[in-house]
Amino acid sequence: MAKLRLLLAGFGNVGRRFVEILADRKSYPGLSELEVAIVAVTTGQHGAWVNPAGLAPATILETYRTRGGFPDSRTTLDAVRTLDFDVLVELSPLSIAGRGEPAIAHVREALSRGRHVVSGNKGPVAWAYRELSTLARARGVRFLHEATVMDGAPVFNLQRHCLRGNTILRLEGILNSTSNMVLGAMERGLSLAAAVAKAQAMGIAEADPSADLEGWDAAVKLTALTNVLMDADIKPEQIWRQGIAQLTPQDLAVAQSRGRRIKMICEAFRTDAGIQGSVTVQELPLDHPFARAEGAGSVLRIHTDLLGRLIIAEDGPDLSTTAYGVISDLLALSECN
Amino acid sequence: MAKLRLLLAGFGNVGRRFVEILADRKSYPGLSELEVAIVAVTTGQHGAWVNPAGLAPATILETYRTRGGFPDSRTTLDAVRTLDFDVLVELSPLSIAGRGEPAIAHVREALSRGRHVVSGNKGPVAWAYRELSTLARARGVRFLHEATVMDGAPVFNLQRHCLRGNTILRLEGILNSTSNMVLGAMERGLSLAAAVAKAQAMGIAEADPSADLEGWDAAVKLTALTNVLMDADIKPEQIWRQGIAQLTPQDLAVAQSRGRRIKMICEAFRTDAGIQGSVTVQELPLDHPFARAEGAGSVLRIHTDLLGRLIIAEDGPDLSTTAYGVISDLLALSECN
Repeated sequence: MAKLRLLLAGFGNVGRRFVEILADRKSYPGLSELEVAIVAVTTGQHGAWVNPAGLAPATILETYRTRGGFPDSRTTLDAVRTLDFDVLVELSPLSIAGRGEPAIAHVREALSRGRHVVSGNKGPVAWAYRELSTLARARGVRFLHEATVMDGAPVFNLQRHCLRGNTILRLEGILNSTSNMVLGAMERGLSLAAAVAKAQAMGIAEADPSADLEGWDAAVKLTALTNVLMDADIKPEQIWRQGIAQLTPQDLAVAQSRGRRIKMICEAFRTDAGIQGSVTVQELPLDHPFARAEGAGSVLRIHTDLLGRLIIAEDGPDLSTTAYGVISDLLALSECN
Repeated sequence: MAKLRLLLAGFGNVGRRFVEILADRKSYPGLSELEVAIVAVTTGQHGAWVNPAGLAPATILETYRTRGGFPDSRTTLDAVRTLDFDVLVELSPLSIAGRGEPAIAHVREALSRGRHVVSGNKGPVAWAYRELSTLARARGVRFLHEATVMDGAPVFNLQRHCLRGNTILRLEGILNSTSNMVLGAMERGLSLAAAVAKAQAMGIAEADPSADLEGWDAAVKLTALTNVLMDADIKPEQIWRQGIAQLTPQDLAVAQSRGRRIKMICEAFRTDAGIQGSVTVQELPLDHPFARAEGAGSVLRIHTDLLGRLIIAEDGPDLSTTAYGVISDLLALSECN
């Protein structure tokens, strides 16, 4: 099998962890059949590096660590347009203000050139799934995105391979780690600001946490799931959205005094008018399957017509979990290569 | 695509529900591509029925309902040896005393004749997986068994398609519905005998509940999972086994007074001496992911080297969930046909 030549766009936490796993691949017996070569790395603000013969993972990491970036200045879009590669690994940061751009342009360009795409960026799946998946089919390549929702836990692969014959009637889940961690800390008495600062210190919350607290990140993930698993064609702006920024520790204490917990819940279901989605703040009784969700782990309940209700949950995910989502897609491409 | 001709061995609860779904298949849009014909039904004590042109599902159900059985007297083994069919659907009852026989003989005979097998009977997977899977590969056919553990929830398919590249380090779960329901009822003050009677009245517990209460059913399921997901080659007798028959409502009340719940837990993990498995009665703190498991729903936590820990759980399964496991395997065969 020929090596898959990767163009790695983005070198944030997930990109670095992905390259670390490649550098340390001998520790993982199951990766013996993963044949990849990184022929280019591009970033938004830390330069780029191109070598058609392949850049050694350890060298990429060492260069970034010692120089704080890479020696070239090529943009991702230019690299996608001009370099020779087999797979675009799109790990640039999500832009909600940009409605998924510029990642959508990167993915569109790669697919148009007949190259596979593995995206860890949710934007292209949430804002342009139907266009991009149609384009991929037309070009005979694949658009994979397991790392976009629930880190690398298999949600898209589950539906593709494990739910044959089922119609998915409803999706429900806790999909945003930051808001779930913040709600847990507020139950323990912290103010919203202190809880956010704590999640930031742990590397979970972003410098600007508003996308998490206002339910935008959850809405983007729910849209991605709904477009792929329920064949919808909606955009995150169509999700009814309620955030947690207005909550106080007193609100959570009152809920707890009633034996309930406040959670940010994503839901999508079929109606006569099409598929509806919402991100809402709900009080759950303690025997609800989501009531015990703690910390960074997401949980999803899938309602089907044949199998009934299936729950899939992460238990203590970390950066490796997300990086695994990328690896899992590359292994799927290797099988077909 | 040619129709898959099924030999249905066994017509208990799951077999009947499977045929009911086939009779009602127009209600399930996802089944439009399932092309099957039942060319024979065999049972242990209720006769058999053979028609090479195919038996209509509704007619099978009506005949069984009105006559209490089928008109012929052919045994399953004879049918497997002599009839022409594409897939043996093995749904005969598990025999723990028989160490998986006679189902193993049925499966071996079908595979030897180059026929696919879809088993809902755990015995062949628990006592003879390595032999039977090797035989299937040698004959170019498939031995599928999604309905054997966690009803039809995708555990074997999950590992086959969704955990690429991972090494499974450990499995933990609650896999026996009856004992979990009995423990729940005993927490509410019922005696063991009353709790068992209640589970029997609900159609969950068998007339002889000892295999459930003594941990045998759980050990058989854990063995099946371990043999397939961890490439072990163990038998249920090698699982260290502890039952719940000695527990009293007082034991459960004492645990609850400590903020804990008593559960029957299956575990399998790698050691230098090979893979070890156990079924034990444990007190779990309420924040343990299994502590809230109620009723008939099973739950499994899979520890991997790359993805981390993944939890998959059924939420309120019923007979359709198990029957779906059979259908899911048939759909997988249809794709390859």
